[in-house]
Amino acid sequence: MKFILKTLFLSWMFINAGVLLQAAEIDTKRGVADPDGNTMWYDCQLLGVEGKGWTDTESYYDRLPVKAKSNVPSSVWNLGHDSAGLCVYFATDSSSMKVRWTLRKNSLSMPHMPATGVSGIDLYGRNEAGKWRFLGNGRPAGGTNCASFSPAVGKDNILYLPLYNGVKSIEIGIPKGKILSTPGQAYGKQRKPIVFYGTSITQGGCVSRPGLAATSIVGRELDIPVINLGFSGSGKMEPEMANLLAELDPSIFVLDCLWNMNSGLVTERVDPFVRKLRTMHPSTPILLVEDSSFRNITPTDKGHLLRIVHDKLTKDGIKGLFFLSNEEMLGDDFEGTVDGCHPNDLGMMRQASVFIKALAPLLSQSK
Amino acid sequence: MKFILKTLFLSWMFINAGVLLQAAEIDTKRGVADPDGNTMWYDCQLLGVEGKGWTDTESYYDRLPVKAKSNVPSSVWNLGHDSAGLCVYFATDSSSMKVRWTLRKNSLSMPHMPATGVSGIDLYGRNEAGKWRFLGNGRPAGGTNCASFSPAVGKDNILYLPLYNGVKSIEIGIPKGKILSTPGQAYGKQRKPIVFYGTSITQGGCVSRPGLAATSIVGRELDIPVINLGFSGSGKMEPEMANLLAELDPSIFVLDCLWNMNSGLVTERVDPFVRKLRTMHPSTPILLVEDSSFRNITPTDKGHLLRIVHDKLTKDGIKGLFFLSNEEMLGDDFEGTVDGCHPNDLGMMRQASVFIKALAPLLSQSK
Repeated sequence: MKFILKTLFLSWMFINAGVLLQAAEIDTKRGVADPDGNTMWYDCQLLGVEGKGWTDTESYYDRLPVKAKSNVPSSVWNLGHDSAGLCVYFATDSSSMKVRWTLRKNSLSMPHMPATGVSGIDLYGRNEAGKWRFLGNGRPAGGTNCASFSPAVGKDNILYLPLYNGVKSIEIGIPKGKILSTPGQAYGKQRKPIVFYGTSITQGGCVSRPGLAATSIVGRELDIPVINLGFSGSGKMEPEMANLLAELDPSIFVLDCLWNMNSGLVTERVDPFVRKLRTMHPSTPILLVEDSSFRNITPTDKGHLLRIVHDKLTKDGIKGLFFLSNEEMLGDDFEGTVDGCHPNDLGMMRQASVFIKALAPLLSQSK
Repeated sequence: MKFILKTLFLSWMFINAGVLLQAAEIDTKRGVADPDGNTMWYDCQLLGVEGKGWTDTESYYDRLPVKAKSNVPSSVWNLGHDSAGLCVYFATDSSSMKVRWTLRKNSLSMPHMPATGVSGIDLYGRNEAGKWRFLGNGRPAGGTNCASFSPAVGKDNILYLPLYNGVKSIEIGIPKGKILSTPGQAYGKQRKPIVFYGTSITQGGCVSRPGLAATSIVGRELDIPVINLGFSGSGKMEPEMANLLAELDPSIFVLDCLWNMNSGLVTERVDPFVRKLRTMHPSTPILLVEDSSFRNITPTDKGHLLRIVHDKLTKDGIKGLFFLSNEEMLGDDFEGTVDGCHPNDLGMMRQASVFIKALAPLLSQSK
């Protein structure tokens, strides 16, 4: 009977998602019983994490491979411990769950970004129409935190990890007898990810929840995996970063580093960076992004230089290179940032809309 | 020569604002010289603060009169020390300025609201077209903070005070020889204020900057003074609060307390609260507001009850009573809050738009 129910649940779950999927149920023997006698805890590593470019990481929830430690600037390496953009896909037949997460850093917030965004977690689930909807978030209060949620039963759920902190561990707790599954080959999961390389803004500064980072919104709207390689203050397009990115095989490379670069670096580094990627990936679309301007100035000084680089590369025969203007990126009311630079939730939603409009047609060109 | 320049400056400043105004220049003798030898500090009390309903306050930057201390619940009294909605209007011929502010509470942020919103300050200035534009904000880092700004030269500026902290003092520092003025009878300043009475959401939870609270946005868009009587968790429409509000003489009363009330309180307290205001103010528009729903549910349970109260009062002959549905208040994408309740910057902008649409026509009915 239990097996039949499970099978029925899984079939319903995946038919409901609109695609015939192969789910992978987590063996209940791999759960750890809570002293409360009712809850089984499952390490999220059992489900796997989405948004990692490399598997050979020092810590499971790192964003950079261990070899980067000796190659990239220390600031980049350290920021690679932040779990920006990492998320866990799961399904369950339980209408209640808990999440317990242990943070790497003691500093839970920034002056212009709340703890919920810096160190919190966010749960989204698909609704009846298959659309992703915010369900709830977990507020951090210390090193180890626990939050309760009502997940979307029998549907895909996404749990977003902290944007400006890292996690040592993260576990999902569900009532004994309930099932936890990876959605498996859910729609979109067979597609190559979009890789975003950029700045603090790319990393998600300064939204109120992880699910509101532009990369998270893009991932949900286009239903595609996203790798967030935003490094606060340190997205400077070093040749070492070009070598690392060239190892990935995404559907699109998005290069959005201008806020962290001066004019000299734009002129010096973008050209060889693009050529390196193009050498390794002859046809993958590459999108060069102008720096946003809360005052609605287009082009910016560095955007002007980036246009020149784009035009030169195109003239030299580089195919599949695109340019994204900052127009409409933060709106025209000057209200899209917390500080004149970092988008607030209003600005990030606007920025995400501009990205989605630019990226959707490029996906069809990606092989 | 100096006098002529000053006169020219003031004339230009007020002609520029589109209305012939009477400015009040702050006597430079009232400034305090900074040890740096270049800066003169002016206490903002010299300029006056907008957004106070009462002048007889225990502390200058309190929102409630001293008599409220023994009348209202202690939680309301304590929250009255928070400077939500208070702002300072000024003009200057200086292109640079500093603001130094000393906070009441040590706790600078909340888990779901950054320090910039809780304890920070925000500067807006009019642009060439007379529109208010965000210019910059001050990040708090401790008890006393200092931030540098580039104000709108020769135009109206607004300095917003912290939303969830109070200030013991706030001063503007400008270079010696420069002028600081009250804009005087600036457009809108002759109009009666709109009074908002409500909850944590009214108080500004959980925006990233004070200028993004819905009441602040409404004030700028409608160019009218606003009194923010939002009391986090404690906007419960006690009879004592009706007595206090009845002392004010606003253009509109906005009653937006449902998130802090249960069904019983809605049925019990709204009716006598409205009747009290109407007794003292026979024709002032009163707007009853439904509680927002991030899931886009209309009516909410309590909204349904509030509609019943509204209909009963109207049937009983109460004129000038209006009802604001929560439709579109947080959008339809479930993304307008930080936690399912408190608007983030995205949701607050949407909420403000709904308020502005509802309030603009009522202003013309106000005497």
